[in-house]
Amino acid sequence: MVLTSSNPSTLSAGLDLNELYNPDPARLTKFWTSFQQLFLDLYGSRLAVIGAIGGNAPAAGCMLALCCDYRIMASTPSKGRPPVIGLNEAKFGIAAPPWLGALMLRTIGFRQGELALSLGTLYTPEQALAIGMVDAIVPGDEVMAKSREAALTWTKIPPHARVASKMLARKEYLDDLIVKRDEDVEHFSRFILNEKVQVNLGAYLESLKRK
Amino acid sequence: MVLTSSNPSTLSAGLDLNELYNPDPARLTKFWTSFQQLFLDLYGSRLAVIGAIGGNAPAAGCMLALCCDYRIMASTPSKGRPPVIGLNEAKFGIAAPPWLGALMLRTIGFRQGELALSLGTLYTPEQALAIGMVDAIVPGDEVMAKSREAALTWTKIPPHARVASKMLARKEYLDDLIVKRDEDVEHFSRFILNEKVQVNLGAYLESLKRK
Amino acid sequence: MVLTSSNPSTLSAGLDLNELYNPDPARLTKFWTSFQQLFLDLYGSRLAVIGAIGGNAPAAGCMLALCCDYRIMASTPSKGRPPVIGLNEAKFGIAAPPWLGALMLRTIGFRQGELALSLGTLYTPEQALAIGMVDAIVPGDEVMAKSREAALTWTKIPPHARVASKMLARKEYLDDLIVKRDEDVEHFSRFILNEKVQVNLGAYLESLKRK
Repeated sequence: MVLTSSNPSTLSAGLDLNELYNPDPARLTKFWTSFQQLFLDLYGSRLAVIGAIGGNAPAAGCMLALCCDYRIMASTPSKGRPPVIGLNEAKFGIAAPPWLGALMLRTIGFRQGELALSLGTLYTPEQALAIGMVDAIVPGDEVMAKSREAALTWTKIPPHARVASKMLARKEYLDDLIVKRDEDVEHFSRFILNEKVQVNLGAYLESLKRK
Repeated sequence: MVLTSSNPSTLSAGLDLNELYNPDPARLTKFWTSFQQLFLDLYGSRLAVIGAIGGNAPAAGCMLALCCDYRIMASTPSKGRPPVIGLNEAKFGIAAPPWLGALMLRTIGFRQGELALSLGTLYTPEQALAIGMVDAIVPGDEVMAKSREAALTWTKIPPHARVASKMLARKEYLDDLIVKRDEDVEHFSRFILNEKVQVNLGAYLESLKRK
Repeated sequence: MVLTSSNPSTLSAGLDLNELYNPDPARLTKFWTSFQQLFLDLYGSRLAVIGAIGGNAPAAGCMLALCCDYRIMASTPSKGRPPVIGLNEAKFGIAAPPWLGALMLRTIGFRQGELALSLGTLYTPEQALAIGMVDAIVPGDEVMAKSREAALTWTKIPPHARVASKMLARKEYLDDLIVKRDEDVEHFSRFILNEKVQVNLGAYLESLKRK
């Protein structure tokens, strides 16, 4: 499977932050449970998933990319700026959930991951390639063709063995979240409903409106 | 200790796949238990073990190399081809056991390890050096001399401290398998006796005969 | 916070080894408990801590550096030699405690960490940068200015989010030691009081006196 976006400048802009600002608690629980399920389905997919990252992939957009088996990012600017990728939650006053933080730590290594999370860094394609957050960068108009090529490489592995080998790396982390889903919902809700976090989120949403 | 092979073109070709094709279940259990013990003895050795990798090290041959404290690989072709190293189990339709998969993830890092396992990649000496699967590459006729040199470096560390320091990195993984040995035998047997896996193995063994 | 030393050639020379040689057991327990607490306070600090490593950082000096959020090391020689950093415990016949060994494995990756611990390697600034043990190297007289600059970068992140994001990486390791403190004191005391370890320590202390 090739995961991409119909919007050439954005893979995904991440969660709708309006859902996190002054939220209805019951709706927040449902929202977060869906988000967990998206991670479980995509990171644990029996399909080989190639991320065709044509444009920006901040926050939950980065999560979508990190769930893939292979990531190809556009190296060319869109609307005059190169695309960026990263878990930038810290910059707008929240933190990624533990399971997403841990996915970053695994993908680019503990030390670079710690920096990336603490500073909420968004990386250019060259930076993302250098630290291993993406596997290849190509001009924007070649992203889909190269992604289909990569997908073909995966189809050459016997499916039963491919899935079992992928799960050697991923199973324990999927199992860990499955066990902790309720705890994770509670932890996230408590964090989001914190007064300081709400103030930061409100300020960030205001700043977006002024852009 | 320097671990090497009397065969200049192969460190070890790995497990005899005939043992896994249409196996007698009791014999398979004994076979796998011996393989676990080899890992426990070599990865947990009180000796500093230098891997002198003169030739190919696929699958369980790669496992032998990954258990060493330091790996020196021949950079020069044997029989016209450069030697290769890697856990290529996925290519012939099976998966490495969890403890071996985890050893690969640790050695070359989670992300490169995930790719290596999913695609069953065999790496050339230059590629293996670049991702840290081996520590040095030298011309084939220097592998033994350089390995003896490396071994001398280890002998300069007080043995009691060397073993304790090595175990800082390895103890929890050795302990983990010791606890899970029976579970691992069962898991592996069930995987190998799966019909699809047997079909893939049979096809692979046929393709080897035609070579 | 910027962590540095008033001694331009040494961040910290580490623990006073005289405390470990022929120790009074009760005093050793108190000594080690304090050392654990230093780690817990520094690694778990709510402050962003920048390590301004102007000089040598061996053993527990390296521990201080590894607890920081960002490390800047002097690249220029002091007293004719470039400064060095590393957990060199193995070289003087002991081993780092498990929680410190694990911190090294995380910081520079499992494989390089395993080598660093087993051989007790002290790294030059260039080597430390190459393996990710420090984040930047600058001439000695710029270490403080660059460290203050780095600290400013951290202050731009909302504190509540910065701490939560930092803890995504560190919390489980802090919690792990908190649970195991008594066990760790016992383990370390038993190791240090071992006869062979005492002989090695005595010989090392003698060799220091002759320098």
